[in-house]
Amino acid sequence: MSLRGIHHVGVAIADLDEAIATYERLFGAIVEHRGLIEGQGVEAAYLRIGAGRVELLAATGEDSPVGRFLARRGPGMHHLAFETEDVDRELRVLAAAGAQLIDETPRPGLEGFQTAFVHPDAAYGVLTEVVSGG
Amino acid sequence: MSLRGIHHVGVAIADLDEAIATYERLFGAIVEHRGLIEGQGVEAAYLRIGAGRVELLAATGEDSPVGRFLARRGPGMHHLAFETEDVDRELRVLAAAGAQLIDETPRPGLEGFQTAFVHPDAAYGVLTEVVSGG
Repeated sequence: MSLRGIHHVGVAIADLDEAIATYERLFGAIVEHRGLIEGQGVEAAYLRIGAGRVELLAATGEDSPVGRFLARRGPGMHHLAFETEDVDRELRVLAAAGAQLIDETPRPGLEGFQTAFVHPDAAYGVLTEVVSGG
Repeated sequence: MSLRGIHHVGVAIADLDEAIATYERLFGAIVEHRGLIEGQGVEAAYLRIGAGRVELLAATGEDSPVGRFLARRGPGMHHLAFETEDVDRELRVLAAAGAQLIDETPRPGLEGFQTAFVHPDAAYGVLTEVVSGG
């Protein structure tokens, strides 16, 4: 196994500017990256909180995964991302262990990261992401 | 601000043994602590995944916070815990910043940790915990 630890926790929110301001005020968060992730229909920001990282996710449209999540459940924790050296290899390990994959191959995330998602049914309702690079 | 990073991500599950086995198989998780947290009506296990930590939470009864969470939403991410040096001081900082607290004072968690919870409305639906010690 080659997971290094928690890369970030993804949190779905409605208004990115407002949520960033709240996380700065409450938790001393510092914005690390911010940008559109075209393929996922989100505007995202990585915030550092101490040595940890939270990814705030705002939908760019209602008909996107995060837009549907917000409509169904409201704001809250959306996914859990683990850091790995090699997303492609990790996907093969997970598939061999019986996990249902959402992404069969890595796709681009924020700022040069490679990412892939594992179906939440594989991990008790936790939408799991594996991330490398950046 | 004095948050050091993510201490753990709490995941509510129905069967602790089964969930531990799944996290071991898929993610190479290693059990760090396991025990009852009397005041919270849960049996919990801390799992290390690389340098990260996931807390699996099973309810000891239906009429407990985790039991009600499972009945309402099913298994999934339950809370996000940040590490701090001093839970009591962190609670005062959070209250001064306008966050609604669930715990006004620290309470005992697993294995000598001190913990306190902040209301999810303070952080966009994220039930936030602050943890120290252990």
